[in-house]
Amino acid sequence: MNLHVVILAAGQGTRMRSSLPKVLHPVAGKAMLGHVIDCARALSPQCIHVVVGHGAERVQKALAAPDLNWVLQREQLGTGHAVAQALPHTAGADQILVLYGDVPLLQATTLQQLSQQAGAQALGLLTVNMQDPTGYGRILRDAAGRVLAIVEQKDASAEQLLISEGNTGIMALPGKRAGDWLGSLSNQNAQGEYYLTDVVALAVAEAIPVEVAHPASEQEVMGANNRQQLAVLEREYQTRQALRLMAAGVTLADPARVDVRGDLSVGQDISVDINVIFEGRVVIGDNVIIEANCVIRDSVIASGSHIKAFSHLEQAEVGQSCDVGPYARLRPGTQLADGAKIGNFVETKKAIIGAGSKVNHLSYIGDAEVGCEVNIGAGTITCNYDGVNKHQTRIEDGAFIGTNTALVAPVTVGAQATTAAGSTITTDVPADSLAVSRARQRNINGWKRPQKA
Amino acid sequence: MNLHVVILAAGQGTRMRSSLPKVLHPVAGKAMLGHVIDCARALSPQCIHVVVGHGAERVQKALAAPDLNWVLQREQLGTGHAVAQALPHTAGADQILVLYGDVPLLQATTLQQLSQQAGAQALGLLTVNMQDPTGYGRILRDAAGRVLAIVEQKDASAEQLLISEGNTGIMALPGKRAGDWLGSLSNQNAQGEYYLTDVVALAVAEAIPVEVAHPASEQEVMGANNRQQLAVLEREYQTRQALRLMAAGVTLADPARVDVRGDLSVGQDISVDINVIFEGRVVIGDNVIIEANCVIRDSVIASGSHIKAFSHLEQAEVGQSCDVGPYARLRPGTQLADGAKIGNFVETKKAIIGAGSKVNHLSYIGDAEVGCEVNIGAGTITCNYDGVNKHQTRIEDGAFIGTNTALVAPVTVGAQATTAAGSTITTDVPADSLAVSRARQRNINGWKRPQKA
Amino acid sequence: MNLHVVILAAGQGTRMRSSLPKVLHPVAGKAMLGHVIDCARALSPQCIHVVVGHGAERVQKALAAPDLNWVLQREQLGTGHAVAQALPHTAGADQILVLYGDVPLLQATTLQQLSQQAGAQALGLLTVNMQDPTGYGRILRDAAGRVLAIVEQKDASAEQLLISEGNTGIMALPGKRAGDWLGSLSNQNAQGEYYLTDVVALAVAEAIPVEVAHPASEQEVMGANNRQQLAVLEREYQTRQALRLMAAGVTLADPARVDVRGDLSVGQDISVDINVIFEGRVVIGDNVIIEANCVIRDSVIASGSHIKAFSHLEQAEVGQSCDVGPYARLRPGTQLADGAKIGNFVETKKAIIGAGSKVNHLSYIGDAEVGCEVNIGAGTITCNYDGVNKHQTRIEDGAFIGTNTALVAPVTVGAQATTAAGSTITTDVPADSLAVSRARQRNINGWKRPQKA
Repeated sequence: MNLHVVILAAGQGTRMRSSLPKVLHPVAGKAMLGHVIDCARALSPQCIHVVVGHGAERVQKALAAPDLNWVLQREQLGTGHAVAQALPHTAGADQILVLYGDVPLLQATTLQQLSQQAGAQALGLLTVNMQDPTGYGRILRDAAGRVLAIVEQKDASAEQLLISEGNTGIMALPGKRAGDWLGSLSNQNAQGEYYLTDVVALAVAEAIPVEVAHPASEQEVMGANNRQQLAVLEREYQTRQALRLMAAGVTLADPARVDVRGDLSVGQDISVDINVIFEGRVVIGDNVIIEANCVIRDSVIASGSHIKAFSHLEQAEVGQSCDVGPYARLRPGTQLADGAKIGNFVETKKAIIGAGSKVNHLSYIGDAEVGCEVNIGAGTITCNYDGVNKHQTRIEDGAFIGTNTALVAPVTVGAQATTAAGSTITTDVPADSLAVSRARQRNINGWKRPQKA
Repeated sequence: MNLHVVILAAGQGTRMRSSLPKVLHPVAGKAMLGHVIDCARALSPQCIHVVVGHGAERVQKALAAPDLNWVLQREQLGTGHAVAQALPHTAGADQILVLYGDVPLLQATTLQQLSQQAGAQALGLLTVNMQDPTGYGRILRDAAGRVLAIVEQKDASAEQLLISEGNTGIMALPGKRAGDWLGSLSNQNAQGEYYLTDVVALAVAEAIPVEVAHPASEQEVMGANNRQQLAVLEREYQTRQALRLMAAGVTLADPARVDVRGDLSVGQDISVDINVIFEGRVVIGDNVIIEANCVIRDSVIASGSHIKAFSHLEQAEVGQSCDVGPYARLRPGTQLADGAKIGNFVETKKAIIGAGSKVNHLSYIGDAEVGCEVNIGAGTITCNYDGVNKHQTRIEDGAFIGTNTALVAPVTVGAQATTAAGSTITTDVPADSLAVSRARQRNINGWKRPQKA
Repeated sequence: MNLHVVILAAGQGTRMRSSLPKVLHPVAGKAMLGHVIDCARALSPQCIHVVVGHGAERVQKALAAPDLNWVLQREQLGTGHAVAQALPHTAGADQILVLYGDVPLLQATTLQQLSQQAGAQALGLLTVNMQDPTGYGRILRDAAGRVLAIVEQKDASAEQLLISEGNTGIMALPGKRAGDWLGSLSNQNAQGEYYLTDVVALAVAEAIPVEVAHPASEQEVMGANNRQQLAVLEREYQTRQALRLMAAGVTLADPARVDVRGDLSVGQDISVDINVIFEGRVVIGDNVIIEANCVIRDSVIASGSHIKAFSHLEQAEVGQSCDVGPYARLRPGTQLADGAKIGNFVETKKAIIGAGSKVNHLSYIGDAEVGCEVNIGAGTITCNYDGVNKHQTRIEDGAFIGTNTALVAPVTVGAQATTAAGSTITTDVPADSLAVSRARQRNINGWKRPQKA
């Protein structure tokens, strides 16, 4: 079946009180429209048309992708008008799915079901039974359960208002009828708009069957018109993520206090304490423990590692059985080999740390390659930046860096070499040697402290 | 209208299990009584009388203000008795509003409405329809809806117990009748107390109209008698703050995980991640991003700045487009000019940091003035304290401070000057020069490490 | 009464998707089975028999204790069969209480009540009225309220399904009948298992009275078969802890954001901000303030101390009126005397800090004894490790350690002595003297910075 998707994303979203176009507001770190596009992609359509209007340029720039056809709706004259703008690009379509850029929780399985149920011949409607359908169009059915029409809230009788089945607006148009139907819509109504829902009446009039599908939950079809609704979507999304993780064998200390913003792939028997945030693409192996308040972004953590409280990882690779934190910051380009240990108040950046090596306290290791079984004392700093260029530090296997050592790059500390505490190392240290750069200590007896000014 | 307010704040609050007088227990960082006083102030009354008893001295001290008249109730003989203590000070009052020091969420708009509705002639009652009115006095009305009486829970018939309209205790007394009514209250009841609510019967008996107003929600009139109720008030207060922020155009990652304790003024398109705490007076400009777990106290953050996770700001001013954190601590007197950057494990105090300057890692900059485009290396410390006095460090435009530099104040590093890594700078460094204080490095070959003891 | 307890803990818990036996999954940091054992211990039984099967060895090892009798159930043939495995060890029992290793929230008071009500003669059942009893066996009673039988969900009539009283499975068997009853169970049912609940019918047939007790809440008897249910138990447990703390006089900023995993003993007027985690055995004195996001593990905090945000304490003792944090990490063996202050980005380990002494910034103090009124400057590091052995640092009363000082242990700084900023101290410093180890500063004028590579 030749499938086209049209996503309506032209609205301004005044109630967002934002300079950002509504559909770019993020849920779980991704623009709402991005979620809808990804949902559409899961059906492998012939083409995805995105109808933009307010902030069109910014929207296109934010979500630019080769598989998207951007359609400009110059004036916002209603949903029917919006879909009509895409019609010139849907030649040959058997089915046209209409989605909304501000309804981001829709699941691909739901869309699949709607699409299959409608096929190329029927009109497909996604409807939902609501706790409180106030404000939604109600689905009118005949005695046999066939859809007759959609009646809007304001036009509904008292009896019709009791109907709990509401219209989500998401539908599947039969490609061969879409053009005629949209062409015959009228804007003779209170708002002066062309309503897409009016095609239901046209289908019924033509005796074209109307097929109905439902989402798994009401939440799936919620939209966001203001920040409060956006927060509701965010929480609903996160609830789903928490359930997914627990089903996969992850222990969550509190399912209401975990945030997943991106793709989190998990092994088994992972333990995640409160307020951990995962962002971007994160992969976590078996038996990993992540303590409270960690931020893990675009990183890989191999099995058996322990990430302690308040740690912050970004574009880092952590090997097996590593110990990280508390208060460790692994910046982009950090690679920890198995059994490495990064302790408190330590920052690493573009740093390769060998197996079993330790950077336990108060250090900055940047642009560095550290061998195996190296011990880096507290207060060690790689002086990788001379104000203009960045230089490399190399510390070979088994070296011991004394506390408060400044390593002025480019510099190499050889295997099994030692640097004395408090040294500033400016030239290479041969293997097995001791480097010292230190003034002799003098003790001045009977020294008088400064007086209070 | 000559308006007086009487706030009852004499109770002990035994169930709080506290040595702190009940009304001093905080909601959102402010004493409950403080909230009530602020609510009263919004009506610009002639005078606010606060009736204190248990811990009177401590309460007065905590909330001392020139517009408050403190009235001591030596014995706690009931609400009617409490209000009576203030009467000698209300001469000339047209209306006396009675509030409670442990009912802190009352809104000024509600109080305004009660006051206006009652005016100088009627008795005003604030009542509320409750989900579960158990324990509250019920409002009895006649067929025309006129209030007849308040019947206490224990005296109510089965039928009366079904009444959902409860008495909040908050009322507006007509000034000219208050004296007579309070003087004629009796303590001939089970508790042996003088009840303020008995004035309703007196008003009805005198055919003085009883006017009723309602709060916007039941929560507004909740009181706290124990820590659990206090926590409920706290959460209710915070829910309100979250709604207010979202309505103003702030994106909250989780409205249930943000705490506002004080006055938070926000621009547009601000993003606030989970578990951020705002305290005191905080002003935040447009497009500011605040990452998870930050604590922001009495600070100003200008537009476009990015406060990263785990940052702690107190009495700090952050310019536009600054980068702060993660794990940055800006202490009082920190001022960042536009585009400045404070990185991880950095503490600043009484520090002025010029435009575009960077303190990226593991540093302490205190009592310092730093120019523009200065780069301060990792591990830099201003030695501002000699054990007795504090001294100033001055770093001029374009200077480059090498890593692990100790700057022994008072000291000045001139414009475009450089300090070598690992140096202790004790005397001024002229502009454009390089300062070095470093022992020569010696490498001792074939060094034997210590043996295991 | 000779009381025996049998705890069923042999299940695999496939739906946990875990390599850990189900009963070892933790609630509040303690294995579910551990909670049940502790509950049983509160009744001081003659013996506690734990029936293990899947992962038996691991379970025994995890919870090894002299008062437990481990019974192996080689095949899992039903609850009746499981209890039967323990029977050879229950000779002389008046009563046998049957508990479940995956029902960890059961309270000792509830169990006590069940035990007493049943005594040695009756069969005791713990039942509960449920919001939704779907899936549970229903309790059938006669007109007089006497229990007649338990009917399983799948065997229940439509009418019986309306019964809200469900069977928890927890029961008290009269010791003298247990053997006969368990011996006469049949596995002629759909699952082919021996069901313990079938003893109810046997008791009724023998006219042995069936006594019923109830837990205080439905949550008390919830079990966990998957991680989602485990999270529900965790939250229920934490809700209880929060209520207990508030009742004891602790102010919680948010009862839904505090985690207690272990034994927390509290004084009065303690204030605990959001997201604080208590683990192990923690004792906190009066008027202690604990700010947001702290982790407190196996520590004691005396009255009046203030633990600021992001602090991490483990096996630490904090005296009265101390100031700790923000971002302070007190590791095992840290002892702070009264009035000591540990500031930001400071790590201590096996460190005794005297009264009034300060370690305010960016320091590592390990294996050290620090006297009273000592001031330790920013960037101070005790070099306690030479790569092989750990050595002690001793800093006597009133000493002043300059910033960026490295103290190469073993070393002593005498009373009132001073070390100059940037010094590496390798030999003892006499009292009242000044130790300096510093190269002279040279300023090289007109220095050219490196060029962009």
